[in-house]
Amino acid sequence: MCQLLGMNCNTPTDILFSFEGFHRRGGLTDHHADGWGIAFFEGPGVRVFLDDKPSSESPVADLVRRYPIKSENVIAHIRKATQGEIRLENCHPFVREMWGRYWIFAHNGDLKSFAPPAGHFYRPVGGTDSERAFCHILETLRHKWGAMPETGALYAELDRLAREIRAFGVFNFMLSNGELLFAHCSTHLHFIVRQAPFNTAHLVDDDVSVDFATVTTPNDRVAVIATQPLTDNEAWTALAPGELVLFRDGTPLYRDA
Amino acid sequence: MCQLLGMNCNTPTDILFSFEGFHRRGGLTDHHADGWGIAFFEGPGVRVFLDDKPSSESPVADLVRRYPIKSENVIAHIRKATQGEIRLENCHPFVREMWGRYWIFAHNGDLKSFAPPAGHFYRPVGGTDSERAFCHILETLRHKWGAMPETGALYAELDRLAREIRAFGVFNFMLSNGELLFAHCSTHLHFIVRQAPFNTAHLVDDDVSVDFATVTTPNDRVAVIATQPLTDNEAWTALAPGELVLFRDGTPLYRDA
Repeated sequence: MCQLLGMNCNTPTDILFSFEGFHRRGGLTDHHADGWGIAFFEGPGVRVFLDDKPSSESPVADLVRRYPIKSENVIAHIRKATQGEIRLENCHPFVREMWGRYWIFAHNGDLKSFAPPAGHFYRPVGGTDSERAFCHILETLRHKWGAMPETGALYAELDRLAREIRAFGVFNFMLSNGELLFAHCSTHLHFIVRQAPFNTAHLVDDDVSVDFATVTTPNDRVAVIATQPLTDNEAWTALAPGELVLFRDGTPLYRDA
Repeated sequence: MCQLLGMNCNTPTDILFSFEGFHRRGGLTDHHADGWGIAFFEGPGVRVFLDDKPSSESPVADLVRRYPIKSENVIAHIRKATQGEIRLENCHPFVREMWGRYWIFAHNGDLKSFAPPAGHFYRPVGGTDSERAFCHILETLRHKWGAMPETGALYAELDRLAREIRAFGVFNFMLSNGELLFAHCSTHLHFIVRQAPFNTAHLVDDDVSVDFATVTTPNDRVAVIATQPLTDNEAWTALAPGELVLFRDGTPLYRDA
């Protein structure tokens, strides 16, 4: 199974601690050795690092670990290939522009026989079910609205689309435009919101702890979303199967299962 | 002035030698300290590294220098801001998907009062004249063709578009989809094609030489395109103002001034 990791905050935050445990799942503590990727928004701009090497051996992962990029929205993915060869164009996250903003998408799961019609606005470059699903989502939204709609309406339409697509198989995904982060659970997805008073957290995958009180300010609020909980001494919330959560400024804004 | 660097080859080649001299122009041997970026195609997939730090101090540039990514098509850019703030979303190269392929674009110059109408297919995310020009080019091509046209027809239309846009100011650019690389000269652009028999080249910006005979095979053909020649002991060809060159497999296929 692929692994997803997301972060949505009210202030630019580095993801080093979470990434430390997460990237080890790419070939060391778990079997996800078919490439990986991570996208960091800075305002509307985005950096996407992709690698078709396992994340535990990747020089690009090394860079990310040593270079504390501060971001309000991050999506990372470690791939276990189900559909599509192990090639760069099949690595998540995928990026497209819609309504004058970049949108980033990563998927964990397997959609059987999902073949939406060729898009007018968006077409896949690689051969994955995931990129087809991403293009289909954007295509549908872009046909419905010519510019960014009101947030509640966007949430409702994505909820409807997630329901439509998960009929084809496992469809855990994250989607962000640098302000909003949508997380959809089809089988496994967990989140935690860290805010004052901050405590010490200890990684599941590595004997590493961090005392967030020493690296945050009292107003910081950080939501971390992951396939499986990354720490073993905090209370993570499991999303229900079929649940879509919208995060903004580190807060779950809408939840609906 | 910004600096452009491009490479188009018939076999995946690393750009370390050219990048070694080029990246020093970002803050050390020249004044281009407003960010930089580089895009590497691997087949239809692409990696884009962007940084709003000067390239001579950037940890991302450090990674690129130490990690020999082999690519058939590369476009790199060092930015001297003329329009648009120094922000990540204003760093070149820009990327969009068209006809199921990624297209990469970088621009050196300054387009005064260039304000094409809002696009149906493509909209800028940042505030540069360069991204507006890129979106306008793709928008025009996408309206004209629903799928990749014949290469000669595409060249002719890009030649027409380049002429239209350079009426607004300096418009040196490079554009690639991972197979074709278009280079347009409005003021300064030079290229060299390296092929057997290979010789030793010596960088202008640094006391570094490489004997290409030791790192190539007899069938390799590599075109390098740069704002100014990168080596001082090879014969670079200057493009004429108004000239558009299309490279494929390391060969200038069409040239027209």
